Amino acid sequence: MRFAYLGPSGTFTEAALLKVDGAAEAERVPMPSVPAALDAVRTGAADAAMVPIENSVEGGVTATLDAIAAADGLRIVAEQMVPITFVLAARPGVALADVRGVSTHGHAWAQVSEWVAQNLPDAAYFPAGSTAAAAQELAGGEAPFEAAVCSPLVAEQLGLAVLGEDIGTVKDAVTRFVLVAPRGLVSRRTGADKTTLVVSLPENRPGALMDILNQFASRGANLSRIESRPTGRGIGSYFFSIDVDGHVSDARIAAALRGLKRIADVTFLGSYPRADGVRTEPATHTSDEAYRSADAWFEGLFDER
Amino acid sequence: MRFAYLGPSGTFTEAALLKVDGAAEAERVPMPSVPAALDAVRTGAADAAMVPIENSVEGGVTATLDAIAAADGLRIVAEQMVPITFVLAARPGVALADVRGVSTHGHAWAQVSEWVAQNLPDAAYFPAGSTAAAAQELAGGEAPFEAAVCSPLVAEQLGLAVLGEDIGTVKDAVTRFVLVAPRGLVSRRTGADKTTLVVSLPENRPGALMDILNQFASRGANLSRIESRPTGRGIGSYFFSIDVDGHVSDARIAAALRGLKRIADVTFLGSYPRADGVRTEPATHTSDEAYRSADAWFEGLFDER
Amino acid sequence: MRFAYLGPSGTFTEAALLKVDGAAEAERVPMPSVPAALDAVRTGAADAAMVPIENSVEGGVTATLDAIAAADGLRIVAEQMVPITFVLAARPGVALADVRGVSTHGHAWAQVSEWVAQNLPDAAYFPAGSTAAAAQELAGGEAPFEAAVCSPLVAEQLGLAVLGEDIGTVKDAVTRFVLVAPRGLVSRRTGADKTTLVVSLPENRPGALMDILNQFASRGANLSRIESRPTGRGIGSYFFSIDVDGHVSDARIAAALRGLKRIADVTFLGSYPRADGVRTEPATHTSDEAYRSADAWFEGLFDER
Amino acid sequence: MRFAYLGPSGTFTEAALLKVDGAAEAERVPMPSVPAALDAVRTGAADAAMVPIENSVEGGVTATLDAIAAADGLRIVAEQMVPITFVLAARPGVALADVRGVSTHGHAWAQVSEWVAQNLPDAAYFPAGSTAAAAQELAGGEAPFEAAVCSPLVAEQLGLAVLGEDIGTVKDAVTRFVLVAPRGLVSRRTGADKTTLVVSLPENRPGALMDILNQFASRGANLSRIESRPTGRGIGSYFFSIDVDGHVSDARIAAALRGLKRIADVTFLGSYPRADGVRTEPATHTSDEAYRSADAWFEGLFDER
Repeated sequence: MRFAYLGPSGTFTEAALLKVDGAAEAERVPMPSVPAALDAVRTGAADAAMVPIENSVEGGVTATLDAIAAADGLRIVAEQMVPITFVLAARPGVALADVRGVSTHGHAWAQVSEWVAQNLPDAAYFPAGSTAAAAQELAGGEAPFEAAVCSPLVAEQLGLAVLGEDIGTVKDAVTRFVLVAPRGLVSRRTGADKTTLVVSLPENRPGALMDILNQFASRGANLSRIESRPTGRGIGSYFFSIDVDGHVSDARIAAALRGLKRIADVTFLGSYPRADGVRTEPATHTSDEAYRSADAWFEGLFDER
Repeated sequence: MRFAYLGPSGTFTEAALLKVDGAAEAERVPMPSVPAALDAVRTGAADAAMVPIENSVEGGVTATLDAIAAADGLRIVAEQMVPITFVLAARPGVALADVRGVSTHGHAWAQVSEWVAQNLPDAAYFPAGSTAAAAQELAGGEAPFEAAVCSPLVAEQLGLAVLGEDIGTVKDAVTRFVLVAPRGLVSRRTGADKTTLVVSLPENRPGALMDILNQFASRGANLSRIESRPTGRGIGSYFFSIDVDGHVSDARIAAALRGLKRIADVTFLGSYPRADGVRTEPATHTSDEAYRSADAWFEGLFDER
Repeated sequence: MRFAYLGPSGTFTEAALLKVDGAAEAERVPMPSVPAALDAVRTGAADAAMVPIENSVEGGVTATLDAIAAADGLRIVAEQMVPITFVLAARPGVALADVRGVSTHGHAWAQVSEWVAQNLPDAAYFPAGSTAAAAQELAGGEAPFEAAVCSPLVAEQLGLAVLGEDIGTVKDAVTRFVLVAPRGLVSRRTGADKTTLVVSLPENRPGALMDILNQFASRGANLSRIESRPTGRGIGSYFFSIDVDGHVSDARIAAALRGLKRIADVTFLGSYPRADGVRTEPATHTSDEAYRSADAWFEGLFDER
Repeated sequence: MRFAYLGPSGTFTEAALLKVDGAAEAERVPMPSVPAALDAVRTGAADAAMVPIENSVEGGVTATLDAIAAADGLRIVAEQMVPITFVLAARPGVALADVRGVSTHGHAWAQVSEWVAQNLPDAAYFPAGSTAAAAQELAGGEAPFEAAVCSPLVAEQLGLAVLGEDIGTVKDAVTRFVLVAPRGLVSRRTGADKTTLVVSLPENRPGALMDILNQFASRGANLSRIESRPTGRGIGSYFFSIDVDGHVSDARIAAALRGLKRIADVTFLGSYPRADGVRTEPATHTSDEAYRSADAWFEGLFDER
């Protein structure tokens, strides 16, 4: 197996990939961007790709979902959650008082701004493409800054000293990552599954969103995430990025998708096990058995007796 | 063919039956009550029965629908509408001024009360089991009243004189009748059909009725009649008597019934041509083609490429 | 006080009226029909009128509600439930074996048909305008029948012998009656109230009924009865007769009525104590306090600070 | 007047600010981050702040809305749309063939990746905190890169040469900015307004989102944007960021907010003129006049006559 992921080496994305069975022994190829990682799967250069999709502090890394939807022929087959903890790392021998410049990714910088304001009020910020890139530049010895905000793992791998631990404002932050594979692959139903869709409406009218939600509600399917997203055809024109609790082979999810398709454009991005392992317990009247029993009743309507 | 109907001979119910193809030449058996007419079908004594079901002036003759629902094994296969016009009929030679007593069915009496108040303010009312029965008693010559309120047809058949024409308050009144047959029979889809259901909920809670209606709305099925009806288990416990536009072989009606069955008890009373012949034109996204196309899309989700 | 009621004396309607505080000592005037009873209130000939409105065995006596709605200027101020039990009554000395004809109201006849089939299979039926009228005709001594189906009370009042007790098919049957008063009167809120409405829509389109129900659901108001009723402008044109749990002075009912009025024609027939005394416990977020608190929050939005 | 904005000078945010009446002549203070700009308003250091809120290519800059919601005491009073066009800028005399490194903000880099892949396939990427910062570093003469992706305006201000015009993938891209002021200020209703809310639910259960949307739908209020956003209390716990068409002084918006407040936690972020100037034409039954008329009807219910 050959896995692509959003690099460079040592990012939280690689940490997410390492949680996938077999990935530790497989070939892991860092890619410079999410679209590049997805392209590797589409062209067959990789068997699957791990990419970030949501950040519990800053909301959706929504461009990723858009890219998967746009890249016809891809499916999400797994998700992983990785706890996000930041350290302030420096080269051995450098003290906190020596730090005049700090580098990291913009998202990470936002999360450590409180700590920095208190501990390094005069430090200059050097933007980096990723937290790992900042640490690597620092380790290289030529950096115009004295410290990097990065993951504990990268600091350890590169032999950097840790000047501050768990310095993010939001404790218990986690980021969500998804593993993307070619369209042929579908994850087996586990009972603790999630289905991701992109839905757009032919027209923008009052009640249109209600109509979409009704297709889920009337089948007993519960939404766990919804975002209206601009279509790129001007602000005001939207589509919806949606997560539903359940697997496409659950009767209620299958029924909701068929119903939804009649009234909207639907792109199915995949059904896959939830990272948190929380099982979905459908109400009695929305179980597969309830669907089977209703179908049997319906067929029986036309029996003579 | 042998048809039962709510008698006696000459009622509006027989008029409704005569509109059924072949009924004029078939054997027609008047029955003393709706339950008796339905029993005749259930036991095989008749092939079908015509019974009244709705009156556009006084609302549902709801006991009939309840009786059909209770009589497991019956199906509605046709409906007929009959215009209801009343005449004041008397034996030849009797003038309006001679009339001191009038007989008719209670429903008819309510409908002619304005005319009577103006033209026969002092007349006594003699209740009858049907308008035809009143006319027959009058024609028999021994009646304690001088006039009957009945249909023009019965007056003509019995050779009675008409002292007042179209004397009902509500002009253009029509009554709805249904033809009931054994369960094996299903009327063919015509494109102008109606489906009749009885639906009850396991529990009475806020939103329960909305949940029922949602099963129709999310499939694009339109209700043309709904009545909450007491279950007989005490006031406050209700079921719903419902008419839907469309035939059980329409994809949207079939889908609504399957969905409804999961959340409620459903009794299917039949799909049959609408008497008014008004075609149901489903919205584009609720046509059979829309259903087929959504199903094909869903099946295609799992094709590799 | 002067009360009109649907007569004759001794009917279940008079029994309902006798349950009203003060009615036993007040003047009680039997009227020949529901419209006549309502007219007495409208013209001031009576202070209030008791009329039947629902029958737990045979569904709505719907013409009554229509008549109240049509009679602008009337309000329902109370409801009463009366248990319906039938006896077979005869003049003293007459045995069951002597009975060849039985008289009663059509509704009562339907309810005792099973008992009659078993005990008097050959008896002829003589329709009567009410159960009390049948008993009175029997007591008068000139009747062409030997027995009447009536209430135990009337049998006792007229000195008739009881040949069969509680002979109705449905045990525990009750009928609902309402007390109607001029528009100025409004019943005080008791916490166990009901509000009756007539609602019609400007157009008949899919989803119209959902829109109506949404006005109730979004305010937390629960429907306890709904019937679509023909408008008299031809079958297919409907309005809705609706009961809601709660009083018009409950915030959620007031809000639902205001919302409903924007999208539909609404006639308010009254708010009055429920006969069964069951208190409505609105959900926390639909209590008067929740409404007050939300309004206070809204007003506070515009305070500077 | 003193305006804060997300700096540095020359960003699209300053361009948005310059579209505000009077801002060209007022003092404009660049701030290093969105939270810093908001803080300036809260502490009184600035009268208002312009910050980016949405990007039609990459979706919501959602952290901004979260920050406004968290910063109690702030209100959105205006929005501005700025067309986003990128140029490749270099110091005079530098040719495309000389470019080996390019700097810009990560969002801009994503948008020009196609053009870069075709025209500068071997160029290295140097992340910058903003497009303007990249241009300024380039103009300073010490940059380790030869070109910057930035706005045409900044290139012109700094005297840079344009090597490529309108190089973004998405043509007609616009970004949305909002002007934030202290809580006391409310924008006047113009008839083309937008209201921004943050809504969270006490519990996550199936149908909860439907209940929220119903509060809007039943009042005739149309949503133009919705995003479920993690609460920071772990993935799976969400709130909703919502834009509604209309002003808080529109009767339907006021009614929806009051209703919403009963069932959810609601933070009102402001009502303000839409940048696109598109007027909202409410349906007849949801106009202020419809609300007034329904209220008058309701009050009249209790008049005697």
